[in-house]
Amino acid sequence: MSLVVVGSVAYDSVKTPLGHRDDVLGGSGTFFSLAAAAFTKPHIVAVVGEDFRDEDRALLSDKGIGLDGLTTEAGKTFRWGGSYHDDMNGRDTLFTELNVFEHFAPKLSEANKKAGFLFLGNILPKLQASVLEQVESPRFVAMDTMNLWISTARDELVDVLSRVDALFINDEEAEQLTGKRTMVLAAREIQAMGPELVVIKRGEHGALVFNADDIFYAPAFPLEKVVDPTGAGDTFAGGFVGYLHATADLSPANVRRAAIIGALMASFCVEGYSVERLRHIDADTIRDRYEAFATLTRFDAPAL
Amino acid sequence: MSLVVVGSVAYDSVKTPLGHRDDVLGGSGTFFSLAAAAFTKPHIVAVVGEDFRDEDRALLSDKGIGLDGLTTEAGKTFRWGGSYHDDMNGRDTLFTELNVFEHFAPKLSEANKKAGFLFLGNILPKLQASVLEQVESPRFVAMDTMNLWISTARDELVDVLSRVDALFINDEEAEQLTGKRTMVLAAREIQAMGPELVVIKRGEHGALVFNADDIFYAPAFPLEKVVDPTGAGDTFAGGFVGYLHATADLSPANVRRAAIIGALMASFCVEGYSVERLRHIDADTIRDRYEAFATLTRFDAPAL
Repeated sequence: MSLVVVGSVAYDSVKTPLGHRDDVLGGSGTFFSLAAAAFTKPHIVAVVGEDFRDEDRALLSDKGIGLDGLTTEAGKTFRWGGSYHDDMNGRDTLFTELNVFEHFAPKLSEANKKAGFLFLGNILPKLQASVLEQVESPRFVAMDTMNLWISTARDELVDVLSRVDALFINDEEAEQLTGKRTMVLAAREIQAMGPELVVIKRGEHGALVFNADDIFYAPAFPLEKVVDPTGAGDTFAGGFVGYLHATADLSPANVRRAAIIGALMASFCVEGYSVERLRHIDADTIRDRYEAFATLTRFDAPAL
Repeated sequence: MSLVVVGSVAYDSVKTPLGHRDDVLGGSGTFFSLAAAAFTKPHIVAVVGEDFRDEDRALLSDKGIGLDGLTTEAGKTFRWGGSYHDDMNGRDTLFTELNVFEHFAPKLSEANKKAGFLFLGNILPKLQASVLEQVESPRFVAMDTMNLWISTARDELVDVLSRVDALFINDEEAEQLTGKRTMVLAAREIQAMGPELVVIKRGEHGALVFNADDIFYAPAFPLEKVVDPTGAGDTFAGGFVGYLHATADLSPANVRRAAIIGALMASFCVEGYSVERLRHIDADTIRDRYEAFATLTRFDAPAL
């Protein structure tokens, strides 16, 4: 029962208050699968151009990521450029060059059609739907989305939402999608649209996990230095879903653990540009930070 | 060993996206002492005008708050008016009428000079200093401050900071005070200025508690409806310090419990205008919400 992620593989050019990097490895599928690969073997379905570097392919492959669904088309790899504000919370998109991604029509291999766990990264809702139609009988399907699709492809998005088990979304998008100002009301509204599991990401403030009636708060790990937030949300989802897949356990207690793993992986992601930090994470690094993370929210019952 | 709070008692006029209230009971000393009164008997040092309503005095008194330090001067009570933005996170001050507060010179009674626990609410740093000079040998002194004093009375503020055990401050103010962008670095910088305990409040995102080397994250309780955020920070501090005083235990484990109590009390505060919700809180209400709060961040160790 494999884990398949459909998303983007891109070259990013990123400016932050601390510096900049050009044409570095990025994309939702990349961050997701690198985070998931710390726990399981994800298979990535994506498209790159002829300029995709051998070293980047080798990185993904060395991490155990299945590349049977990574196709190469004539043309250039998807490129995105962004500039972060001083507080690192907001950013402006400087350019988006879809390149080979413009005509991306994900076609799943026979093996990938049998995926047990599926993550639909942030691509056009109609492409997410076409992937859903190709998989045979997945046990768990999660999706991401973004403000652009909420405003320009709402009907298709709502249709996909009705057919998935989980949505990863940030707080502003959750409000945009539902018109509800508090995350409790927004999550209930989204649950009524389909997914029982709604994960509302809040950047440096962590994530709220609404799993049927269970509400869990996964904090973000307090870091001394944030270098580049790009990919943190996809890394969070990759750790989360990768851990669920590795443990094959969808119980509420395990979903809570998975959220902590997601937050843990995201905390590494933002400590470096691109995948610089993620590429060097191993089981020991994860265990060490987990210990610090586990104590962050622990308290004994007060006398009441 | 009593708990004394020095702060403002005010009449607020508040507009939110949901409605408005005029001339309702507010002020940092009011919210702090009402929250603390759920656990202990705080004594409030403040000034009001001749227009201060008997019913408001009775409310404070009925909650067991010591009013020996609440003086009445000729003139009107301090008034503040504010309007909250749509997301309830930001607000604009519409007016500030200092009235009797303009010449507030806190003078502690002989009993209050023997305070064991002292909270210096958000007043002019030089007034905070004058209170510090009056208390004899307090065991625990905490203070609040605001952006205005950081920019206009920085030297006096830094002087007070060097003489207290704890600072309550919001994230923007922490960055303004230290120039550090991450809360970890900001907290370390503030600790180096004096207080071993630095509590960084983040509104609906909870609070980060830096207690010497211990780092704790107290989440905000996810609410369906936020009616009026006014006083939430003072209520948080009141629950926090009130619980510490009631238990007379400054151990790291108990400081963590106190932070949870603060977050719990703040979650009640924002559910109503002014002190509407706080005035009706009893031990059962607190215990019930604590149970829900306790499960919010609880998780079992993952397999790593």
